Amino acid sequence: MPELTGQHWIGGRSSRASAPSFRAANPATGQALEPGYAEATPAEVDAAAQAAEAAVESYASLAPARRSAFLRAIGEAIAGLGDALLDRTEVETGLPRPRLASERGRTIGQLKLFADVVDEGSWVEARIDQALPDRQPLPRPDIRRMLVPLGPVAVFGASNFPLAFSVAGGDSASALAAGCPVVVKAHPAHPGTSELVARAILEAARATDMPEGVFSMVHGATPAVGQALVTHPLIQAVGFTGSLRAGRALCDAAQRRPQPIPVFAEMGSANPVFVLPRALAERGAAIAKGLAASVTLGSGQFCTNPGLTLVLRSPAADAFLERTAALLTAAPAGTMVHAGIKSSYDAALAEVEGLPGVGVLARSTSHGPHAGSEARPALLATEASVFTAQPRLGDEIYGPVTLAVRCDSKVQLLELARGLHGHLTATVHATPEDLVEFSELLAVLRRKVGRLIVNGYPTGVEVSHAMHHGGPYPATSDPRATSVGSAAIKRFARPICFQDAPAPALPEELRDANPRGIWRLVEGAPTRDPV
Amino acid sequence: MPELTGQHWIGGRSSRASAPSFRAANPATGQALEPGYAEATPAEVDAAAQAAEAAVESYASLAPARRSAFLRAIGEAIAGLGDALLDRTEVETGLPRPRLASERGRTIGQLKLFADVVDEGSWVEARIDQALPDRQPLPRPDIRRMLVPLGPVAVFGASNFPLAFSVAGGDSASALAAGCPVVVKAHPAHPGTSELVARAILEAARATDMPEGVFSMVHGATPAVGQALVTHPLIQAVGFTGSLRAGRALCDAAQRRPQPIPVFAEMGSANPVFVLPRALAERGAAIAKGLAASVTLGSGQFCTNPGLTLVLRSPAADAFLERTAALLTAAPAGTMVHAGIKSSYDAALAEVEGLPGVGVLARSTSHGPHAGSEARPALLATEASVFTAQPRLGDEIYGPVTLAVRCDSKVQLLELARGLHGHLTATVHATPEDLVEFSELLAVLRRKVGRLIVNGYPTGVEVSHAMHHGGPYPATSDPRATSVGSAAIKRFARPICFQDAPAPALPEELRDANPRGIWRLVEGAPTRDPV
Repeated sequence: MPELTGQHWIGGRSSRASAPSFRAANPATGQALEPGYAEATPAEVDAAAQAAEAAVESYASLAPARRSAFLRAIGEAIAGLGDALLDRTEVETGLPRPRLASERGRTIGQLKLFADVVDEGSWVEARIDQALPDRQPLPRPDIRRMLVPLGPVAVFGASNFPLAFSVAGGDSASALAAGCPVVVKAHPAHPGTSELVARAILEAARATDMPEGVFSMVHGATPAVGQALVTHPLIQAVGFTGSLRAGRALCDAAQRRPQPIPVFAEMGSANPVFVLPRALAERGAAIAKGLAASVTLGSGQFCTNPGLTLVLRSPAADAFLERTAALLTAAPAGTMVHAGIKSSYDAALAEVEGLPGVGVLARSTSHGPHAGSEARPALLATEASVFTAQPRLGDEIYGPVTLAVRCDSKVQLLELARGLHGHLTATVHATPEDLVEFSELLAVLRRKVGRLIVNGYPTGVEVSHAMHHGGPYPATSDPRATSVGSAAIKRFARPICFQDAPAPALPEELRDANPRGIWRLVEGAPTRDPV
Repeated sequence: MPELTGQHWIGGRSSRASAPSFRAANPATGQALEPGYAEATPAEVDAAAQAAEAAVESYASLAPARRSAFLRAIGEAIAGLGDALLDRTEVETGLPRPRLASERGRTIGQLKLFADVVDEGSWVEARIDQALPDRQPLPRPDIRRMLVPLGPVAVFGASNFPLAFSVAGGDSASALAAGCPVVVKAHPAHPGTSELVARAILEAARATDMPEGVFSMVHGATPAVGQALVTHPLIQAVGFTGSLRAGRALCDAAQRRPQPIPVFAEMGSANPVFVLPRALAERGAAIAKGLAASVTLGSGQFCTNPGLTLVLRSPAADAFLERTAALLTAAPAGTMVHAGIKSSYDAALAEVEGLPGVGVLARSTSHGPHAGSEARPALLATEASVFTAQPRLGDEIYGPVTLAVRCDSKVQLLELARGLHGHLTATVHATPEDLVEFSELLAVLRRKVGRLIVNGYPTGVEVSHAMHHGGPYPATSDPRATSVGSAAIKRFARPICFQDAPAPALPEELRDANPRGIWRLVEGAPTRDPV
């Protein structure tokens, strides 16, 4: 395994201006892990932002094939870390090895996806309206528009996906693909994993001859480093996945800047699951099995964990909840990615269980070798009237739990749905007849979420062109943005238009001959033809 | 002329819960214009937002042809107001009749453009990734994504375009086209114009059988009404054109909400014009003529007014500035759209003229019949070193003035360009040889603006598919958004994706057969074919 240095990486060089002040811990045992990591100083944050700024023009002007080669080289360098990476990630996060291997595959896959998007090139949304010199009363100029990178982007590593939403995760991959240099704030729960991946990125940057400031990474265990980064005048956008509290603090800080900047924060979501009557009667046991598996996947540490389950009161609903309770009682407790997450889970459960009208239908009795660090799956239950009166019940409890809400009528179910705030996903289990009877429910849910799932489970977010992983506040800070799938690249770019610019002053994408062969909107119609 | 009532229009009905407290004034004479208008009360703002919310689902679910018919009917109803509309607008704004006639044409043209966009239908960015049931290790679900409306939108009428950026202007047209109900806060300088246009919209809504809350309009002369609207929990996005101070206040208020919402504010821009040496030598007099015309167009009340003119010191530059000074000295003063704009212009000019190192090269000596209300065109001049040391000089002076900045060298010119904040546009007058020599300048300007013009003038914003009217802060609050051109519709929509939804639960746009014949991204490739 490459020796960890505990350093920040700024503009291609290591740095550590202050003494180490924190270490990762094995979340199963609490054992501290070497080496120590330091809080980046304000000067180090500034140096990282300056390095990124210095790289902006050279990186943005690289031929797309150079940029895609860099993204692919990052994937290869991560793969090249081999077991050493998974060894460290496993001990830092307690996540099971097969899950980490699959997450690594996804991370490399995302880098390749964005490399393909860059190579194909149409993501820049080129639009051309040609001059009409004879138009009356005034001639029309030649107008050509495309997306260009926003500038240096700050990315915050997430704790729950130490590879796929962290140093070289979707935010970094999409920002680098868009042509933006990236400064990562590593998550303090997995600094060693972060260091290994950062060094892989730097190795790829050297191998593909990228400008030095294209990637930097700083450490910090307090909010100060992140705040310094988000408020740095050279940073132009932020990608974040984490808690509502932390995400909102970053959004507010970004808005208080002299120049406000966009923050793409993916935050809390309870991902309601509606199990409709006929589906419940036809296959309640199967849905209970799928639901319990989704609730406990990764110890409930998925943004799309189904934290709310809504049913209409009936004998079939009772049987469904009994079955779900039995499965969750038997489901093994699991180690959470860090001690803070585990204690927050226990505290939130205790709070909600203590609310009047909330009952505990199940609490897992099965634990592993490190019971003290493990989160025990649970099934809570309440009535729609209680749910509606208690806003806390609609918020996320981060961990392997779902709150079942029993409704007395379709009207009450619809009212409950109308009262939901924003979530990443909603799921409906339904027969074709249910879908007809509850079409109004689907119309309501379309206003509430970024993804609507029929007869499936919300965990497992496909990385593809059509995926939208986002949703109305508080699920995210900007419902127009996705953090998964190829459309994520659009977050880090903005349009510029050229008026009457001669060919040499135009980017290749906008030249008459269309040398890159991309799809363009010419006079409003998509085409790959030259103009 | 239809009799003006002085009322708000809320959910299709007139309302006035408080006494009239302000009147429009003829900006040329100061004469107050009947009728009086009242500040909307908090209950009236709430009623407008509630009416919009009540219309959300029914309006969003209308067939696109219904929505486009409504947009076209608005245009016809505005045309149907005939001279009565222009009579009132002229007396409320002091803008010349031919300009108002042309602005009315542009307003109707924008409504038609968005109607065409809605009819064509591809603006929803449909994307389809079909199921791969046999994929290993896990099957891929069917994922389909498209844009859906954000919900009720608040639009602020702008003073400088009483038709094209006001009640039925680009923001309203694009929000309505996206499927969002609109609540307009009328600009208090042209409440009568606003009332006439609002009633035309309501007539069109009735004629095309739209839901009642699809459009409301409230009046107010203090910031309270706008603040109440932007902070109303049902409002989901805001369109604004106006000053940096007012726009920033709205952005900050929107971010302080429990649920922050996007504000698309187009604010201050000085639109720098670089006149490069060979162009200056070859056709300095012609550029001076074009520049003076652009500076004085609409009495300098365009967002894209060229407020900065940058040259390299030379005899040709001196001649160019002398020529420009002569033209601006002779240019007639013009009435500003309201007294506040005129006094702000005079105050800003006085402030800048008083700065050390700033000289006055020209001040128009020609005025019309209402000298007291007219803004006098001006040419100011300074040196690059003074400009760089005085941040105030880079900010907009709203009115018919440009500040010429003389640079000693190409290096100094580039340094000045690098120090610019965001603007809507930058213009370069250049020969082909200039463009080669100053290619670095163009690269720098691409980071600073939303539109880069070569050998033209920034005023006159084409309404087309490729137009981008936006730019980095403080030009706008979101450099990814345009307020002019067909892409403006994207501001008011967000993606939703459907996973494994059967055909009856899918919008038409996402069904296999592609019944609307729209362009869709299927497995990442654009096509109009069915799947």
